Amino acid sequence: MDYKTQIRDYIHSSKEDYLTFFQKTIQEASTVGKEQGVQELIAGRLQEAGLDVDMWDLSYEELSKSSFFNSTRTSFEGSPNVAAVWKGTGDGPSLILNGHVDVVPEGDLSDWNADPFSGKIEDGKVYGRGTTDMKGGNLSSLIALETLMKLGIRLKGDVIFQSVVEEESGGSGTLSCIQRGYKADVALIPEPSQMRIFPKQQGSCWFRVKVQGVSAHGGTRYEGVSAIEKGWHVFREIQSLEKRRNDRITDPLYDSNPIPIPINIGKFEGGYFPSAVPDKVVIEGRMGIAPGETIEEAQQEFENVMKDLAKEDSYFNDKPVEVEWFGLRLPPGNCPLDHDLIKHLSTHYEAMKGEKPDVAGSTWGTDGGLFTQAADIPAVIFGPGTTAMAHFANEYVEIDSMFETAEIMALAIIDYCGLAE
Amino acid sequence: MDYKTQIRDYIHSSKEDYLTFFQKTIQEASTVGKEQGVQELIAGRLQEAGLDVDMWDLSYEELSKSSFFNSTRTSFEGSPNVAAVWKGTGDGPSLILNGHVDVVPEGDLSDWNADPFSGKIEDGKVYGRGTTDMKGGNLSSLIALETLMKLGIRLKGDVIFQSVVEEESGGSGTLSCIQRGYKADVALIPEPSQMRIFPKQQGSCWFRVKVQGVSAHGGTRYEGVSAIEKGWHVFREIQSLEKRRNDRITDPLYDSNPIPIPINIGKFEGGYFPSAVPDKVVIEGRMGIAPGETIEEAQQEFENVMKDLAKEDSYFNDKPVEVEWFGLRLPPGNCPLDHDLIKHLSTHYEAMKGEKPDVAGSTWGTDGGLFTQAADIPAVIFGPGTTAMAHFANEYVEIDSMFETAEIMALAIIDYCGLAE
Repeated sequence: MDYKTQIRDYIHSSKEDYLTFFQKTIQEASTVGKEQGVQELIAGRLQEAGLDVDMWDLSYEELSKSSFFNSTRTSFEGSPNVAAVWKGTGDGPSLILNGHVDVVPEGDLSDWNADPFSGKIEDGKVYGRGTTDMKGGNLSSLIALETLMKLGIRLKGDVIFQSVVEEESGGSGTLSCIQRGYKADVALIPEPSQMRIFPKQQGSCWFRVKVQGVSAHGGTRYEGVSAIEKGWHVFREIQSLEKRRNDRITDPLYDSNPIPIPINIGKFEGGYFPSAVPDKVVIEGRMGIAPGETIEEAQQEFENVMKDLAKEDSYFNDKPVEVEWFGLRLPPGNCPLDHDLIKHLSTHYEAMKGEKPDVAGSTWGTDGGLFTQAADIPAVIFGPGTTAMAHFANEYVEIDSMFETAEIMALAIIDYCGLAE
Repeated sequence: MDYKTQIRDYIHSSKEDYLTFFQKTIQEASTVGKEQGVQELIAGRLQEAGLDVDMWDLSYEELSKSSFFNSTRTSFEGSPNVAAVWKGTGDGPSLILNGHVDVVPEGDLSDWNADPFSGKIEDGKVYGRGTTDMKGGNLSSLIALETLMKLGIRLKGDVIFQSVVEEESGGSGTLSCIQRGYKADVALIPEPSQMRIFPKQQGSCWFRVKVQGVSAHGGTRYEGVSAIEKGWHVFREIQSLEKRRNDRITDPLYDSNPIPIPINIGKFEGGYFPSAVPDKVVIEGRMGIAPGETIEEAQQEFENVMKDLAKEDSYFNDKPVEVEWFGLRLPPGNCPLDHDLIKHLSTHYEAMKGEKPDVAGSTWGTDGGLFTQAADIPAVIFGPGTTAMAHFANEYVEIDSMFETAEIMALAIIDYCGLAE
């Protein structure tokens, strides 16, 4: 029997065991600061498989030395990382399987049809916070790794399994893995891509622009200057910048995407009193960062536009706007389209599904950006589940897609890292 | 000695007494609900002058029957009204002297150079909250009335003195005077006009418009509809409406006013999260109401514009905006330009100052709107002090302007109500 059939059979026969384990990981409500339980589950599983497990607490002191550090936490108690290396025989390309266990809060309980942390199975789906984003993908990685190990397959290159924290709030988990010295030739992150392959991932960062007006009584509003009207001028300039930035993107990967790297104005707040001319507006938003550019480059371009406001309206000479960068800061991920891992994933996807996979640029950031920019490791996203369900009530993942992804991953890993002997 | 000289001499010789009394009225910190003290002072003074004083508590039950009622209070404890009638001999036109004793809060104490309720005198000015808005004007009225009485002058028409509450928060004090049956041929309100004559006063009301968007993730913002962008469409339509409404005003009184009845957008709030397409915007503002129109007419015109939004953007068919009228609601005041009282005030102003008075339309509302619209009594504003100081720290009124106003008022009252015998 060839190893392809063995892999399929092994996965098929282990489904019940994996689903039970999956439910346990969902039942661990691993919101920020509460990841200890689920990490111990995973560490235990890796140990049982025969691996030496590295479980460590993130160090604020160490992390804060990096320019990529982005977190409001100064202590990471309750949020350990887990990693384990399955050593190859040598001389083969190495691969990181990376996935985060932190989940966003469940939100309003009344929006959920069942306990968000039940892991309830119904109609071929597992329900619960974190099922699609991204414990489902983590399960696929674990299945792929264990399957290869249990079948006695030996690879030339190393496979490094990383179960990280903090992806939802700035990427400190993956940054800590990089700082701890884990390196490989490529990283595969099974974020919910609906089994599409994303060699490129949109980065993003948040901005805040403060616009000043001149207050006056509403009955003589012409004696003041409305910060709302000036804020709208800023808004339009941001829209023009968005157009210029997106016009530059000619990568065919984005052909079907109307705005590959949007600048979203998420908040526009000005004024406090109906009868007063508003003297302050705060605009907040998210700027998409293109694969291949750095956050700093994009921010500089944005700041230049804000400096040039006075060219069209001299008012901004006297009252320049203030720009602040805060909160979110996700570098874009990037992997060459002709990378071997993409080729192998595509081949095995097509063999299973009878059609070529969809290869696209993701519209959201992942820890892949840190691999790309902080460690020079190309990163590819390929995972089960859909982002349409991520962060919403009644989040779920389709059971079949987790096992299909696992099978394709196992086969692609063999091809990428190379079968020993 | 003719009565003009007597009046001037009397006022001149009583200045010290009046200033002491004025300081006492300032020292009564009569913010909303705390007007009892100052009203007792004034009632006492009117009694000493020999008048029967009517002092009563406002009745929520009675007030709330009127369509002009506009207050968040359901009890008016601590805020009595005061009125007194100086009966004429008969057959002469009657006149109301109306002024409010409620003052706005002192605000941040650190902005004041001295105790806001000290009534400190310096460089020909009296300082303190309420000096210009409008206890200074009230003093002028009291001086005018007392001077005529003390000099033994008898008039044909009645003079009704009203010291009211609640002007700053909706006009319930004056509305209560109207409901109590006080009537006259004209009302004179010495709000701080800097001794200009305002036969017309801008009315105003507050609006709130809720605009809906469609939420989406900022990384795929084209999947949503930004409520901020739609809100800007609403903003522009409100600006067009303002232009149309002001183009209709051809009264020469407003020749020097760039926007006689502005629509001020005081607040524009949308969105809550930088990475989300905002699905809601709230716009709040103040619409100026023209003398001669009712609040209802202006509101109808505004609502029609909001209903017509879909004509230019069919999006508003599915997501119509919501319009709410809340808070402020001041009807405009109006007095014919050829009214006798305006003529008499102008004559005596010119005689004293050597130049014609400035006759204009006020940019703010007063209780004069209630006289005009709820009681069909024309109302004229003419008072000492300037609105530039009203509601600000270090509010003051010039001493001279209070006494000059009092003298002009006394002479104009004689001419208007008619000297008996």
